[in-house]
Amino acid sequence: MDSKTIGILGGGQLGRMVVEAANRLNINTVILDAPNSPAKQINAIGQHVDGSFTEYESIVKLAEKADVLTVEIEHVDVEALKKVKAKFPHIEIYPLPETIKLIQDKYLQKEHFIQHGIAVAESVALVNNSKDELLSIGEKFGYPYMLKSRTLAYDGRGNFVVKTKDYVDEALEFLKDRPLYAEKWCPFTKELAVMVVRSLDGEVYSYPTVETIHQNNICHLVYAPARVIPTLAEKASLLAKNAVKSFPGCGIFGVEMFLLPNNELLVNEIAPRPHNSGHYTIDACITSQFEAHVRAVAGLPMPKGFTEFSTTSTNSIMLNILGDRNVPDAELQICRRALETPHATVYLYGKTTRPDRKMGHINIVSSSIEDCQTRLAYILNDESYLSKGQSLPPIELVRPVETPLVGIIMGSDSDLPVMSVGANILKKFGVPFELTIVSAHRTPQRMSQYANEAAKRGLKVIIAGAGGAAHLPGMVAAMTPLPVIGVPVKGSTLDGVDSLHSIVQMPRGIPVATVAINNSTNAALLAIRILGAYDAKWLQEMQNYMINMENEVLDKAEVLEDIGYEEYLSTKLKK
Amino acid sequence: MDSKTIGILGGGQLGRMVVEAANRLNINTVILDAPNSPAKQINAIGQHVDGSFTEYESIVKLAEKADVLTVEIEHVDVEALKKVKAKFPHIEIYPLPETIKLIQDKYLQKEHFIQHGIAVAESVALVNNSKDELLSIGEKFGYPYMLKSRTLAYDGRGNFVVKTKDYVDEALEFLKDRPLYAEKWCPFTKELAVMVVRSLDGEVYSYPTVETIHQNNICHLVYAPARVIPTLAEKASLLAKNAVKSFPGCGIFGVEMFLLPNNELLVNEIAPRPHNSGHYTIDACITSQFEAHVRAVAGLPMPKGFTEFSTTSTNSIMLNILGDRNVPDAELQICRRALETPHATVYLYGKTTRPDRKMGHINIVSSSIEDCQTRLAYILNDESYLSKGQSLPPIELVRPVETPLVGIIMGSDSDLPVMSVGANILKKFGVPFELTIVSAHRTPQRMSQYANEAAKRGLKVIIAGAGGAAHLPGMVAAMTPLPVIGVPVKGSTLDGVDSLHSIVQMPRGIPVATVAINNSTNAALLAIRILGAYDAKWLQEMQNYMINMENEVLDKAEVLEDIGYEEYLSTKLKK
Repeated sequence: MDSKTIGILGGGQLGRMVVEAANRLNINTVILDAPNSPAKQINAIGQHVDGSFTEYESIVKLAEKADVLTVEIEHVDVEALKKVKAKFPHIEIYPLPETIKLIQDKYLQKEHFIQHGIAVAESVALVNNSKDELLSIGEKFGYPYMLKSRTLAYDGRGNFVVKTKDYVDEALEFLKDRPLYAEKWCPFTKELAVMVVRSLDGEVYSYPTVETIHQNNICHLVYAPARVIPTLAEKASLLAKNAVKSFPGCGIFGVEMFLLPNNELLVNEIAPRPHNSGHYTIDACITSQFEAHVRAVAGLPMPKGFTEFSTTSTNSIMLNILGDRNVPDAELQICRRALETPHATVYLYGKTTRPDRKMGHINIVSSSIEDCQTRLAYILNDESYLSKGQSLPPIELVRPVETPLVGIIMGSDSDLPVMSVGANILKKFGVPFELTIVSAHRTPQRMSQYANEAAKRGLKVIIAGAGGAAHLPGMVAAMTPLPVIGVPVKGSTLDGVDSLHSIVQMPRGIPVATVAINNSTNAALLAIRILGAYDAKWLQEMQNYMINMENEVLDKAEVLEDIGYEEYLSTKLKK
Repeated sequence: MDSKTIGILGGGQLGRMVVEAANRLNINTVILDAPNSPAKQINAIGQHVDGSFTEYESIVKLAEKADVLTVEIEHVDVEALKKVKAKFPHIEIYPLPETIKLIQDKYLQKEHFIQHGIAVAESVALVNNSKDELLSIGEKFGYPYMLKSRTLAYDGRGNFVVKTKDYVDEALEFLKDRPLYAEKWCPFTKELAVMVVRSLDGEVYSYPTVETIHQNNICHLVYAPARVIPTLAEKASLLAKNAVKSFPGCGIFGVEMFLLPNNELLVNEIAPRPHNSGHYTIDACITSQFEAHVRAVAGLPMPKGFTEFSTTSTNSIMLNILGDRNVPDAELQICRRALETPHATVYLYGKTTRPDRKMGHINIVSSSIEDCQTRLAYILNDESYLSKGQSLPPIELVRPVETPLVGIIMGSDSDLPVMSVGANILKKFGVPFELTIVSAHRTPQRMSQYANEAAKRGLKVIIAGAGGAAHLPGMVAAMTPLPVIGVPVKGSTLDGVDSLHSIVQMPRGIPVATVAINNSTNAALLAIRILGAYDAKWLQEMQNYMINMENEVLDKAEVLEDIGYEEYLSTKLKK
């Protein structure tokens, strides 16, 4: 697609996935890392360099084979990169060496963000790593506070929690001889992250806001989208974009954030490269973070919207596969369970196993986060990922089951003769549905539970039939955000007009989709039309139904014209 | 994931995409083909064999390095495979050499299907390739009929249309020295295809039924799903599964079919390998055809449902990128336009360009086939892929635009004061909508056009307001499969009850979701609930709206309890 060759400093899993994206676009890549590193394994035509991304000589060798240099890790030799740029002025380096240098030092990174109006946790740099210094910080920040290495810290290594002043000595011993800074304690409720890709002309495009869950300081799970209200997700996205706009150059950036109890957001740190929190994008988004990075550094098109979820109903959970702590390769059992789980995709990185090493990841993509969680519970064989009341699914349950899409409820079994006609329509169309009795007046708790849980259980529409005072449809509608269809059931007095008015005349704020008296057929057909609004299968089925209906009437018209109205009246319409 | 090494005969694009899938699962592959072939380019650790899949010696070399052999092309040396199996009994070969042999000879393939009750076009094998033979076939089948080479025929090469008896000499000259058979003319209306994967224990799993469109006998486009009614798609799927069940062994098969004018389906031919008609599966399905093949031959899990569309609303078009006939690499312009198009993904195969050579493909995936087609038209710069009345989109239009999801219509501008209240609700929620006047009685043609085109234009719900006789909602519902919400607008007499009854009392077959008189607020809220049934964003927004409403009432209750009802009445409720 492009004649430029991209040289990558680092050949781990991030480089590997960049190479996979570049391969698909016929873009050449060359890798600098140890022989047989994960990224090199999947590129047999690149003239790779065996060496280290911290050695000047190796970086020069890479530059001799490339037109653009990029990194899969920020701990590279920046001075070497600058010298390389001076030696080979035609070579482009993204992210810019200045950006990498700034980001390598977490304290400078924080100062940079403060200068650019990006919210971060309050921090102070240590001057002489002395006990007095730490004690006076304790007085300023209070305890606990974080003591952090300014450089070469990742996956929690290089961090120490100073719980009280009694921990000061231990902290200095743990982090001795490193440049340090202290950070005020950040009592976050969630950790959020946003991948942002920047084009050379300064446009930034954000991926969806996600939630990261760590175990032993290593990323364990990523929930996409983050389980926060949309306003907060949008706020996180804006913060991330502003943070990335503060750096010139181009490429992908991972922005990690803390969400505080007061809904404030602080940027924790930024990675100038593909990031573990963006692996879900391979399956869940229109374009993966890896292809986005290739496009950015190769100057290929980045149209608006290319970083979004593939569909509006995309939900995803990413699970990191770490090397088992006890039995080598035992982590492959998790992968095997993932292969047994539809909607889960396994990625392994071609590494030899070591305890806690990132060996691969699994992307689960489905139309609801609850469904993703059920599949995750199966894969991990772990009940703690299930909602309250759910039990660990047998393998059959993670296979597609026909979850009911429509719930039919009625106040009394006396409504069944009317409501069963609609149920038969759903059966005829093959729509999965459930049918039960829920009475607003006799089982108010049951009604409330039914309405509250309906959306979570995967129902898309509720049909409620009721006669007389007919409160059921409106009360259910008041407790669920789903569309509710009301069927007025004709009683022994008032011809059902009482129920019709009771169901249709809802106050502003809570709608009930009301159909004709006793007409559960139309309620069922309306439910199918609602499913068809987003699911082309049901739209097509409804179209076919309407065509058949038209044909039936045309056939009757033909017979009527053929045999005459008197004959028709006496033969076709007699009971 | 698995310690078996898969040896692949053939290293073209199909092999390359199998290798990509195997790489992701840490499954070793070794390739037999010319040096630097597409599949070899993306595997630097396999001990590949340079040679040909038609040479015994090369196949032996491959077998020495592999545990399982498979093919990306059926034109391999089957006798060599059989000898290899005899020499290395521990090696598994999928598809079975016997299957490949049968499939290599298209006439034997047809006879096999007839024996297994699979419908195929009537055919007859030629004995001595004589003119008399062809003439007598012409008398039997009528003209035109197809004369085909039994072996080594693909992309239309090896086929000749015998239009009349005057073409018999030319046909024999064109196909001389080849084993031939004649096939009765098949006046198909569409070509369909289904990918089917078979596990070793004989379970078969089908991918969605697709439609293939050829240009110059080469696959040009694949529409997924096929643009046929669901019953036919299901019939094609069953036929394909039965065809594949007739072969022992395991792996992926591509089944090509003809759809005849009477809706009959005939199997055209079968490919015992990944197939061009299945490339869309990489982006559109839960598991790609390539990973499915790897799983089958490596004995990895294949759970029910793993071959389905990722979501129920997935639609896809695959476009083959052929080497330009005039200017080398000019085909890359198409790829560049695809990169400018969100929802399109480019795959290039690492080949040097040649006229008509398959250089790559583009997968377009979206929630409607019309949207896919609009994007395709932009990519191809070709108006012929647009529906009637559409014009070629500028690049801005293939970028996500806010297509209206809700259409608000009313019979007269006098309804606007009532209907605008609902419009304001949609605006407040940020739902893209359109609003116009459509009168059932004064603009019946316009109404009919509006209703007929609504679903195609991407609308999900229609809100129709009407007073008096109030025919608009019901008439629109009669002409669209979408859900229609009716708002009875109160006139100067009868308090709107006339309109309410006219809208709600629809006959069985055509539902209108009726809301309270003049309550366009509830119509808008119902529309948002309908969107929320499938789109979690709107479900969440509706939930937030309901919570706010609850809070507002609770606040009022607090004030009322606080200041007392008399004070409240005089201060809070005075106009």
